[in-house]
Amino acid sequence: MKAEIITIGDEILIGQIVDTNSAWIGQQLNDVGIFVHQITSISDNKEHIKKALKEASARANVVLITGGLGPTKDDITKHTLAEYFNTSLVFNAEAFAIVEQLFKSRGREVSEINRQQAEVLANCKVLINQVGTASGMWVEDNGVIYVSMPGVPYEMKHLMTNKVIPKLVALGGSQFILHKTILTQGVGESYLAEMIADFEDELPPNFKLAYLPSPGSVRLRLTASGDEISVTNKMNELVATLSNQIQSYIYGYDDDKLEQVVGNLLNKKGYKIATAESCTGGYIAHMLTSVAGSSSYYMGSTVTYSYASKSDLLGVPADVILKQGAVSEEVVLAMVEGVKKLYKTECAIATSGVAGPGGGTPEKPVGTVWVAISTPKGTFAKKLSLGENRLRIIQVAGLNALNMLRRELI
Amino acid sequence: MKAEIITIGDEILIGQIVDTNSAWIGQQLNDVGIFVHQITSISDNKEHIKKALKEASARANVVLITGGLGPTKDDITKHTLAEYFNTSLVFNAEAFAIVEQLFKSRGREVSEINRQQAEVLANCKVLINQVGTASGMWVEDNGVIYVSMPGVPYEMKHLMTNKVIPKLVALGGSQFILHKTILTQGVGESYLAEMIADFEDELPPNFKLAYLPSPGSVRLRLTASGDEISVTNKMNELVATLSNQIQSYIYGYDDDKLEQVVGNLLNKKGYKIATAESCTGGYIAHMLTSVAGSSSYYMGSTVTYSYASKSDLLGVPADVILKQGAVSEEVVLAMVEGVKKLYKTECAIATSGVAGPGGGTPEKPVGTVWVAISTPKGTFAKKLSLGENRLRIIQVAGLNALNMLRRELI
Repeated sequence: MKAEIITIGDEILIGQIVDTNSAWIGQQLNDVGIFVHQITSISDNKEHIKKALKEASARANVVLITGGLGPTKDDITKHTLAEYFNTSLVFNAEAFAIVEQLFKSRGREVSEINRQQAEVLANCKVLINQVGTASGMWVEDNGVIYVSMPGVPYEMKHLMTNKVIPKLVALGGSQFILHKTILTQGVGESYLAEMIADFEDELPPNFKLAYLPSPGSVRLRLTASGDEISVTNKMNELVATLSNQIQSYIYGYDDDKLEQVVGNLLNKKGYKIATAESCTGGYIAHMLTSVAGSSSYYMGSTVTYSYASKSDLLGVPADVILKQGAVSEEVVLAMVEGVKKLYKTECAIATSGVAGPGGGTPEKPVGTVWVAISTPKGTFAKKLSLGENRLRIIQVAGLNALNMLRRELI
Repeated sequence: MKAEIITIGDEILIGQIVDTNSAWIGQQLNDVGIFVHQITSISDNKEHIKKALKEASARANVVLITGGLGPTKDDITKHTLAEYFNTSLVFNAEAFAIVEQLFKSRGREVSEINRQQAEVLANCKVLINQVGTASGMWVEDNGVIYVSMPGVPYEMKHLMTNKVIPKLVALGGSQFILHKTILTQGVGESYLAEMIADFEDELPPNFKLAYLPSPGSVRLRLTASGDEISVTNKMNELVATLSNQIQSYIYGYDDDKLEQVVGNLLNKKGYKIATAESCTGGYIAHMLTSVAGSSSYYMGSTVTYSYASKSDLLGVPADVILKQGAVSEEVVLAMVEGVKKLYKTECAIATSGVAGPGGGTPEKPVGTVWVAISTPKGTFAKKLSLGENRLRIIQVAGLNALNMLRRELI
């Protein structure tokens, strides 16, 4: 089974909304072994829609369509589908009952325009939408399955989960696909590629490796299809081999988040943590506290953007700041010790750097960031060079700091 | 000029990442009067890429391609383009100089794999990428412009903004389109719609109004096309009318950011600011310090996640916390006064709330957030109810707090 997605709506093409539906659908289909071959976003235009339908049905045997089912004049998907299939629209009592019920629950009258929402393609199986006024429609035509759904994510997801995916799975014929993602930090894409060149060369032909870089992190994704048992066994073996080769860079797998991984380690050890942030300006605190339950190990942060606050609040000796500069090993080490005392914790992270765009010098250019880590094992500092983009410097420094701490905790 | 976007990468089709590049490109092109006709997302597959290129070039005369330019084996866009154009790849010294410089600034060696990053299509104009290792490539072939760019959003945006859009605009032939976006905070979409219903009804036919809601904020976008002078005059008139009607909710226009607006106001008044954050956990500090130059007015933050740190560091009387609870008007007012003293500032923001998912009670359910604002005009606190999603609570509380401060400063 090979699927394509067509999303209809001018708002996507002019960038007014980001199409998040397609990624969600892709994920869900993948989970049941159906591969999405292409995603096409087109305008609310009759000829364009018909052309896209024709092209997609030549490439795939399942075509999922979202959007253009609303009650207003710019919603033309239903009428266009009727033309495409050379059929008509018919009133559906069951769909209308849902529309009536929805309006009643909101204390509103059903207008003529809403009555038309209950009209469906004469050649379709109606997929009743329990959470909105536009029904889904399932059409089988010339060996291709077409499914039309509303573009509202909440309604589309309801129909996909409860109607479309079960029907597709029941038809069988879907292939077993397995993904495993390995999450790394602290190593560039090209270095990683060199390190695992032999591994990549020796991958079985039904396994694919992809590099997914983002600021400060590279995800490695292994994908395989075939017989469930043999693919699963081989995948486990390959992930173990790969993990072994690049162990020190791996912070997690699949949907893990670094801040969650660090939180789990702190919880497990019974350690509490505080942060002292200069250039990262609260970003590390924000990452750590975005995790539910972080209040059990996260005590707080002192963001010290001024020289005075570094001395007054964290006890960094003023003469050290004067002599070495705020962006220095000495200062960041004093900050990490100071914040541990202040919040009475076993662990701490401190940062001091030049986030730019101003403030750089030849010795300490923009992107220079000192990070200090303290755990019961000891305290150390490391200098990073992180390019010139302010927000990127903050984010990558944050990821590096959390990963440095993670390595100390394991 | 009619454009199409092709995004290349299996990670999009399996839903591992959401394609945000296309929406951004659509928006940017629209701003300069170029309409995106179709967006197509395809896999890292040679035949698929070639087919998509052929189809797109039959429908449009500008084809923008993102993705597949990385240094690793799964990145096949460059070689596929060479086949498609029946040309070869050649080493480009200027591109290599950038690669070398980037690696040098990060203190790393250039490997063979990185050297290959400097190979470009023999028939292209190289678009030098100042912020990454993969160059952009501009090819004109059979009356169609093809532009290949990296998929990393940061690099793609750099190339689009500095190279591609100026080149496209210079070619002319685009229609005059004018957008004006009005940024609001603290009012819901439907309330806004009711308030400006008459304004919307009376819009001239060549003006369109769009509501773009995001957590804690609604952007209103007016779009018009036509004769440059008359459209510009009418736009100014309409924006003035609209601004007048909803003035108290507007914090800026177009690309303004609330944290930047607040920073400008602080700079103008010569005030310094500090923050004391409990439930927002450093997010407000992060927002304020993401602004370049914020060190001139931002002194620091004390993130107090524990009861003890609220008393010890901010001087909130322990009996007040015990009696009123940490999430209370009394505590947040004591926090804001405490942090002002600590960092010796004229202004401060303090937050204390229940970000959830745990910790809610019938009196103080998840989403209850107290925000205190202090300026030389005075100090006050306000209670917000922000739903149940942890990250959304943090973000919306942060936006509300900054906007409360903004209103006090103007």
